[in-house]
Amino acid sequence: MNIIDSLKWRYATKKFDTKKHVSDDKLAILKEAFTLTATSYGLQPVKLVVVSNKEFQKELVPYSFNQEQVAQASHVLIICIENTVDEAYIRAHFENEKSIRGISDEIIDSFRSFLIADFSSKKETEIKEWATKQAYITLGNLLTVCALEKIDSCPMEGFVPEKYDELLNLKNMGLSSVLVLPIGYRAEEDMFSKFKKVRKSIETNVITI
Amino acid sequence: MNIIDSLKWRYATKKFDTKKHVSDDKLAILKEAFTLTATSYGLQPVKLVVVSNKEFQKELVPYSFNQEQVAQASHVLIICIENTVDEAYIRAHFENEKSIRGISDEIIDSFRSFLIADFSSKKETEIKEWATKQAYITLGNLLTVCALEKIDSCPMEGFVPEKYDELLNLKNMGLSSVLVLPIGYRAEEDMFSKFKKVRKSIETNVITI
Repeated sequence: MNIIDSLKWRYATKKFDTKKHVSDDKLAILKEAFTLTATSYGLQPVKLVVVSNKEFQKELVPYSFNQEQVAQASHVLIICIENTVDEAYIRAHFENEKSIRGISDEIIDSFRSFLIADFSSKKETEIKEWATKQAYITLGNLLTVCALEKIDSCPMEGFVPEKYDELLNLKNMGLSSVLVLPIGYRAEEDMFSKFKKVRKSIETNVITI
Repeated sequence: MNIIDSLKWRYATKKFDTKKHVSDDKLAILKEAFTLTATSYGLQPVKLVVVSNKEFQKELVPYSFNQEQVAQASHVLIICIENTVDEAYIRAHFENEKSIRGISDEIIDSFRSFLIADFSSKKETEIKEWATKQAYITLGNLLTVCALEKIDSCPMEGFVPEKYDELLNLKNMGLSSVLVLPIGYRAEEDMFSKFKKVRKSIETNVITI
């Protein structure tokens, strides 16, 4: 199946088959794909939380506007942002770069100094907004990778982040939840899987200058 | 090449080969993939502007923090948001759904009314923020599709949107530029293509609960 067919195959799954589970191998692909996502300056201000405990999943439903997919799904992926992107965070990033690429401080120094100064001049809300945008890039990537791997998913902005953060103890990990993505396999009776996809025409949607 | 190898292959291209061009067939895949991207409520508050006029591309460089890739690239994709998502916009979306799915007003009425009320209660800045997030989903999708199709790209947040909007006459189309993605093929001498990818370890980046 080519990429276009895969993207046509995917849809926001309304009902998952509770008996089917995403294998560890497939899950490993999603975890690595998430980690490989491009982010601004390569700073990766995002983390992925994976929940497959059914009790936890049930508890999350009322804080997900009662979307039952959160309970039915094989796994619930929660895309989170880092609450703190400060000098220490940026320094740690460059230490990682140095160790992976075997390069010296000299090479990275001016860019590191620029980023430290840049982020220290930003308001907390600006950093949050910036990090949130990066979370959406990871969602775009994960949705496509799921489609390629024939994993069904349902992207959700509609949930109560504060409640997720509390129930999953995310604050103690320095994280805030931003997006929720239940994954698994569509239930055969999910009529939404049979509906035609609604999109603007490519001619309307793409402008060539 | 599997999806993980494709994602490892991609990088933020620093120098494009000005002699190599993305074919019409490949471009058609990107246009369709963009259009197929999932967006909030399916409202698609995003459009893709494709520029391949070299004079235009050169003009955009000073408004892209002098990133020469904008001039070198085969095509520059500009992800834009709709400036107006109002009742008329929402009604047009549902007319499109009705015509594609052959369904009646009765079926869509309550959801349509909800969305019209919901968006009319939002401030302009809130709608802009919401639409911008959707633009980032399309970027995540496009980066992955480019990688699968062996097209190089360089995602850019660093540009002057007002200048892009002015030069490309986007305001008259009801659009604002949000993200820039030059695409093409890496120049052989781009040393960045040889660097090891810098990422946190999957163990650090993914938390299983």
